[in-house]
Amino acid sequence: MTPNTARRNEASRRAVLTAAFDLLQEVDYAKLSIEGIAARAGVGKQTIYRWWPSKGAVLFDAFLMLSEGAGGEPPMLPDTGDLEADLVLVLRATVDELNDPRFEPPMRALSTEIAHDPELAAAYAERLDGPLREAKRQRLRSAQQAGQLAQGLDLEVAVDMIWGPVLNRWLQRTGPLTTEYTDLVVTTALNGLRPRGSSS
Amino acid sequence: MTPNTARRNEASRRAVLTAAFDLLQEVDYAKLSIEGIAARAGVGKQTIYRWWPSKGAVLFDAFLMLSEGAGGEPPMLPDTGDLEADLVLVLRATVDELNDPRFEPPMRALSTEIAHDPELAAAYAERLDGPLREAKRQRLRSAQQAGQLAQGLDLEVAVDMIWGPVLNRWLQRTGPLTTEYTDLVVTTALNGLRPRGSSS
Repeated sequence: MTPNTARRNEASRRAVLTAAFDLLQEVDYAKLSIEGIAARAGVGKQTIYRWWPSKGAVLFDAFLMLSEGAGGEPPMLPDTGDLEADLVLVLRATVDELNDPRFEPPMRALSTEIAHDPELAAAYAERLDGPLREAKRQRLRSAQQAGQLAQGLDLEVAVDMIWGPVLNRWLQRTGPLTTEYTDLVVTTALNGLRPRGSSS
Repeated sequence: MTPNTARRNEASRRAVLTAAFDLLQEVDYAKLSIEGIAARAGVGKQTIYRWWPSKGAVLFDAFLMLSEGAGGEPPMLPDTGDLEADLVLVLRATVDELNDPRFEPPMRALSTEIAHDPELAAAYAERLDGPLREAKRQRLRSAQQAGQLAQGLDLEVAVDMIWGPVLNRWLQRTGPLTTEYTDLVVTTALNGLRPRGSSS
């Protein structure tokens, strides 16, 4: 491959990924077609079929491109020493993103593709969700070392306890995603459902 | 409508709902077509288009038919007085159902339709999930009245704290749904992530 061909391929690849993301502002994911993406990107549909096995794979790569655009640094959660305040901040930012009309349709589409496609779920877990989960565990580990979290706590379950309710409410539309709700999730996860004794 | 027509319509309706459910054992939901359902049910596809606006609506009615088949009583959670044991039992049963190869494909399909369709989500919330959520809140309310849960606890958040992580792990495939996991979710939700003082 000559340098020129490589550059043209990379430009086409980016055009396809951007087109897929943009089109989801206009059409439902179920109606998004490879033909439509090709037309918007100005490439032949054979180009898309050659590089991606499915429209779910295109969408996944579009998210990868976005996360690489963020600088390539591994994600990190804020650590001010105040776990509750840090979690409140992070969950509020998550909710802003989930409610953002530019991101919501593609994120819903990716989430539901993952629900039906174990291979895509594995790629997502490894390349997109994995580094983020590690950042969440790391923040909780630091709090645990500071004695702010229970010693025997399972950090995987702890991550699910904070983010699971929010993601589930968003995806299943069981209620509005407000900062009131996420703040309450943080407090309730930290304190637990049982009454706290006066000494704690 | 004569009694005979009504009876034939009801038989056709049930044939369509059963066919949709059964076909999901064989084809992906994305590939499930109204034509395919009509052929399996032995009805014309115009019959289906007349009664349902979409295949998501067919699927929803199939679940309604199943829940009506359960006897028409409102659902209730076990209440032995031991909240932790009751929740462990219920979540284990939930996991058995989510992992059941007969139920998993249609339940994934319904969940992802809900993610993309606010109207279907509203119907689901009212007719299927609503009564179940009320049963969950009721079990927690009874524990709260017995002093086993914190007095200021928001019961909506509490329900999400127990079921949200499990449903999210299942739908997003972030890990295996085992009874080990669900048991740990129950304990962690009840105790919270923070250390418990010696008095509680």
